[in-house]
Amino acid sequence: MIKAEILAIGDELLIGQVLNTNAQWLAQELNSVGISIVQMSTVSDQKQAIVDALDEGFKRADFIFITGGLGPTKDDITKIVLTEYFNTELVLDAQRLADLKYYFESKGREFNDLNTSQALYPKDCFVVNNECGTANGMWFTNLEGKVAISMPGVPYEMKDMMKKVILPKITKEFLGKSIQHRTIRTFGTGESTIAKKIENWEDQLPSFLKLAYLPNVGQVRLRLSGTHEDESVLKAEIDKQVKQLYSLISDIIYGEGEAEIEEVVGQLLKDNQATIATAESCTGGYLAHKVTSVAGSSSYFKGSVIAYANEVKINELGVLSSTLETFGAVSEQTVKEMAEGIRSKYKTTFALSTSGIAGPDGGTEEKPVGSVWIALATKDKTITKKLVLGTDRGRNIHLGALFSLDLLRRYILNL
Amino acid sequence: MIKAEILAIGDELLIGQVLNTNAQWLAQELNSVGISIVQMSTVSDQKQAIVDALDEGFKRADFIFITGGLGPTKDDITKIVLTEYFNTELVLDAQRLADLKYYFESKGREFNDLNTSQALYPKDCFVVNNECGTANGMWFTNLEGKVAISMPGVPYEMKDMMKKVILPKITKEFLGKSIQHRTIRTFGTGESTIAKKIENWEDQLPSFLKLAYLPNVGQVRLRLSGTHEDESVLKAEIDKQVKQLYSLISDIIYGEGEAEIEEVVGQLLKDNQATIATAESCTGGYLAHKVTSVAGSSSYFKGSVIAYANEVKINELGVLSSTLETFGAVSEQTVKEMAEGIRSKYKTTFALSTSGIAGPDGGTEEKPVGSVWIALATKDKTITKKLVLGTDRGRNIHLGALFSLDLLRRYILNL
Repeated sequence: MIKAEILAIGDELLIGQVLNTNAQWLAQELNSVGISIVQMSTVSDQKQAIVDALDEGFKRADFIFITGGLGPTKDDITKIVLTEYFNTELVLDAQRLADLKYYFESKGREFNDLNTSQALYPKDCFVVNNECGTANGMWFTNLEGKVAISMPGVPYEMKDMMKKVILPKITKEFLGKSIQHRTIRTFGTGESTIAKKIENWEDQLPSFLKLAYLPNVGQVRLRLSGTHEDESVLKAEIDKQVKQLYSLISDIIYGEGEAEIEEVVGQLLKDNQATIATAESCTGGYLAHKVTSVAGSSSYFKGSVIAYANEVKINELGVLSSTLETFGAVSEQTVKEMAEGIRSKYKTTFALSTSGIAGPDGGTEEKPVGSVWIALATKDKTITKKLVLGTDRGRNIHLGALFSLDLLRRYILNL
Repeated sequence: MIKAEILAIGDELLIGQVLNTNAQWLAQELNSVGISIVQMSTVSDQKQAIVDALDEGFKRADFIFITGGLGPTKDDITKIVLTEYFNTELVLDAQRLADLKYYFESKGREFNDLNTSQALYPKDCFVVNNECGTANGMWFTNLEGKVAISMPGVPYEMKDMMKKVILPKITKEFLGKSIQHRTIRTFGTGESTIAKKIENWEDQLPSFLKLAYLPNVGQVRLRLSGTHEDESVLKAEIDKQVKQLYSLISDIIYGEGEAEIEEVVGQLLKDNQATIATAESCTGGYLAHKVTSVAGSSSYFKGSVIAYANEVKINELGVLSSTLETFGAVSEQTVKEMAEGIRSKYKTTFALSTSGIAGPDGGTEEKPVGSVWIALATKDKTITKKLVLGTDRGRNIHLGALFSLDLLRRYILNL
């Protein structure tokens, strides 16, 4: 198994100004192709610190993934230190110089001497093109065949060159294999419950496929990663396994890849030429925010009434005073009337409503903090659901909104 | 100057399952008392990896701050490794055992052998009480007087013992000084503009005070940290300096410490026995969400109309069709009518409204993406403001909401 270290360079990390999210991302990606991380380190922009880190790193690992210290300013010394460390010299890359000048011109920015230094590259290294910024990556190999790869510290620049160039090159040259990932997104069921449901499936996965559980608020992403000599065999196997996975837990799978649940629901609404409105009490606008965080949502979202005060529930949503008096604002009857009220007022295909006790105060024995009712009004009927959530206000608001979106998703898909 | 390393222990970090936020927080805290971080490392839950990291760390630093690996399960070996490394032995802390049993009982959880191990502590170490969890911290001193401090990996447990015990002990015993911080929160002005405005003030700060700029979306926190032999001198100096800072930029300061702008605005509304409603187009409910994310906001927030569709702006907010036709939805006239409409309908003291082009599409030459109008309606008049924001949808929504809150804050405070 290939062993790797992750080395971040930069004083901004050591003073705590910047959070090192690169290390976590790199660890996930490298693990998914079967490379094991033995250590992560962060050192300052000083020659001796970098040299020591490389010396120590190569004792433990075959690969060192370096981020940061590639900017044009004087404190960014990574390139110079690496050039010396690997006994080579800097040479001017005329093409890169021309590219950089064009890049600066097109952005209306001035090109100066410091920028020229960004076209200097070590003679004996494989230069990794940076399509998103000015500092290219560098791939060095030492006499023992061990590798150090230097990348920019800017996350999206680093990720872009990892995905497009570095990971494919590693798997091809060192693993002799191609890589594939597929991420299945689930909502509303906990990690351990899912693990139990798919236990037998997980156990029978071929050894070249790895499954990772990536949990988030209300959600678990299941990432199936594989490496194989034959790309088509790998693709076919992943397709087959994912199909089996769907047969086990199709009801909780809302999408794949990067699509968030609000995007999936948005697409379903578009596909069905349907419109939506929301009437929110406890979610306080967060459900509408989720819906409208999707670009283009104006084609299906008409609007909302956020009804914190009972008078707004009555005057704007048509909730009966008697309903509030008899059952209270946090009740099945109230969310039902709220959803039906906004649907008829805003003339939408669907309407979602929420009412609950977000906390931290306001709970009673009968309705403790975390008691949330949600409803979906449709042309034919209104569906309600009671959620029993926790004590954290932010999390309750978040989950109330996501469960509402999922209620709509399930209805549209007949789940 | 004291040099320190930060060492995280845990396989969950090396596989990228958990993001190491502890290192950044520790770096900020230690820097603020004048301790410099020379390296951060993450190693696995293996004896040799931990021992090597300690050996190497002590070559570079006087202090090693260790997080993680203190749980009750078998893979958490930090305590055993440290006990051996510092040539001492584990002994049972009877009081801790009793405390732990009580803790488990009170939570209705079963107490087992693995938990008993959490009452074992190295003989020659200073045990740091954990008020938030079951694993205490440990402070070891080696023969050269260098220190290793082991803390839990759970962020709030670690932070609690750092703030209450470890940082005060370090400053008292090693710096012979007391520490104080004060964080001033500003909104709406960039870091470099603030830096220019307070340049002279910053230059005259006494050497025992340090200023840190901590930027966030739309905001910059200015943290003044000091260490001094005499606590009262320190306090007086910080008070004096902060007073001068206020005289320079009082209009952009919205609060101190941990208070977010929505909490500050909420308190102002409470203090003035005022109520509020919002009418939102481009912020799509995010402004209402910000307001209602504050516990207890139901005492001043009545509700909102989220008016994405023009028909909702007309029917629910009373915006004139002619206004929309003549000036468009994204215009001063429209936000003015939206704010006045919701204020009169919901009978609130104040009303905020937003309308803009959040992006990524929908921009025109005249009104590019990022053009946002906001308005505040009051009893006497309606104030409007045009924002020229960027091209990122999420950021535009976020900033549109925050600038609206700041508009209200400034009005209430006559700024």
